[in-house]
Amino acid sequence: MSRVVDRGSLRFVFLLVAAIAADASAHCSGSGSPLVRNISDIPQGNFGRGGFAHATIAGAVSHGMKEVEVWLQTFSPGTHTPIHRHSCEEVFVVLKGKGTLLLGSSSFRDPGTPQEFHIYANSTFSIPVNDPHQVLNTDETEDLQLLVVISRPPVKVFIYEDWNMHHTAAKLKFPYYWDEECFHVKDEL
Amino acid sequence: MSRVVDRGSLRFVFLLVAAIAADASAHCSGSGSPLVRNISDIPQGNFGRGGFAHATIAGAVSHGMKEVEVWLQTFSPGTHTPIHRHSCEEVFVVLKGKGTLLLGSSSFRDPGTPQEFHIYANSTFSIPVNDPHQVLNTDETEDLQLLVVISRPPVKVFIYEDWNMHHTAAKLKFPYYWDEECFHVKDEL
Repeated sequence: MSRVVDRGSLRFVFLLVAAIAADASAHCSGSGSPLVRNISDIPQGNFGRGGFAHATIAGAVSHGMKEVEVWLQTFSPGTHTPIHRHSCEEVFVVLKGKGTLLLGSSSFRDPGTPQEFHIYANSTFSIPVNDPHQVLNTDETEDLQLLVVISRPPVKVFIYEDWNMHHTAAKLKFPYYWDEECFHVKDEL
Repeated sequence: MSRVVDRGSLRFVFLLVAAIAADASAHCSGSGSPLVRNISDIPQGNFGRGGFAHATIAGAVSHGMKEVEVWLQTFSPGTHTPIHRHSCEEVFVVLKGKGTLLLGSSSFRDPGTPQEFHIYANSTFSIPVNDPHQVLNTDETEDLQLLVVISRPPVKVFIYEDWNMHHTAAKLKFPYYWDEECFHVKDEL
C-alpha cells in the first residue's frame, strides 16, 4: 500500500523542521547575542538530569568566548553533579543554598575516599586542576545555586562511575551536554 | 645630638614591623587559604578610590590561579572605573544596582565616542578583547555590585585619560593596584 504526500504537505513539514532548527540554534551564535544580556532570558536546560538547571551565561560555543566561560547552575535538594575531572581551572561562587563538595585526588590510580567540604551561600572555592570532584545539594529543602567559572572552554569532562574507578577508566564526554547543540551547529558552518 | 635606643625598644619595633608585614601578606599565599572561603572574610580595599571596594575572590597572586581570576567590586553612586583596556577576556555579572557601560573601539587610533549600554541587576556582558571601556554607577542612590571574571591573570591594564587619547599613549599599570601588595611579597620569595 502506498501513500501519496502532496507537495503542499512536504513544504509545510520542511518549513516546520527549519523553524525548529532555527529556534534550537538561536542562542548559539555569538554575533547574534546582544552585548548586555538579561540572565533570566538565557536559555536553561536540565540535560536529562531531574532537578537540575544549567544556563551558559557567557560561553565558547554559544557566545564566542575563547578563554573563560561562566555558567549559572541550580541543584534541587538531593541532586548533584557526576563525579568528574577536567584539566581546566574552575571557580565556584555559591549564590544560594548549601551543600557538599567531595574532592578526590589525582595523585594515585583512583580518586580514593574524597575529602568533604561544607559549601554555603556567599562562599567560594576552586577545584585543583585534574582533581576528581562532585558537588551535591545535601540540603533537604533549599535549592543550591552556583555561579561557575571555567578556563579554556569548551569543557572536556572525564566522568567516573564511583570514587574507586581508575583515572584512566574515566570516560571523556566531549562536547559536554550543554555544548552539544551549538557545537553541532558550529560544525555545519 | 645623638639618641640612644635600647635593645628592648629595638626588639619591640622589629616585632611590630614583622607583625604588620605578616598581616599585610596573610591573604597573599595560595597555600595558606582554606579551600572553601567565606567571601565576606576576603580582604577588601578601595586602593585610593573613594566609594569603591574590590575583593579578589580567586586570584593569581593571592590564591595561585593561573588561568582565571574572579573579583567582587562595589561602586557607590557616581563612581566609576578608569577608561581602560586589556588583552584578556572579561565577563561581568551584575549582582546589584544599575549603571552604564561605555565601550570604545580598538579599530582606530583612539577609542572615539563610546557606545553606551545600560547595565542592571541580573544582567551579564563581556568586553571585547582590547576594547577601551569604562563601567559607571550612574544611579543616584544605590550601589552597583559586580562579579568580574578575567582570563590570563594577573591583569595588565592600559589606562586612558579620555576617549580621545591615542591607544599608544595609554599608560600600562602593572601590577594593577590590587595585585601590588602580593606581587611584592611573591618577588621576595
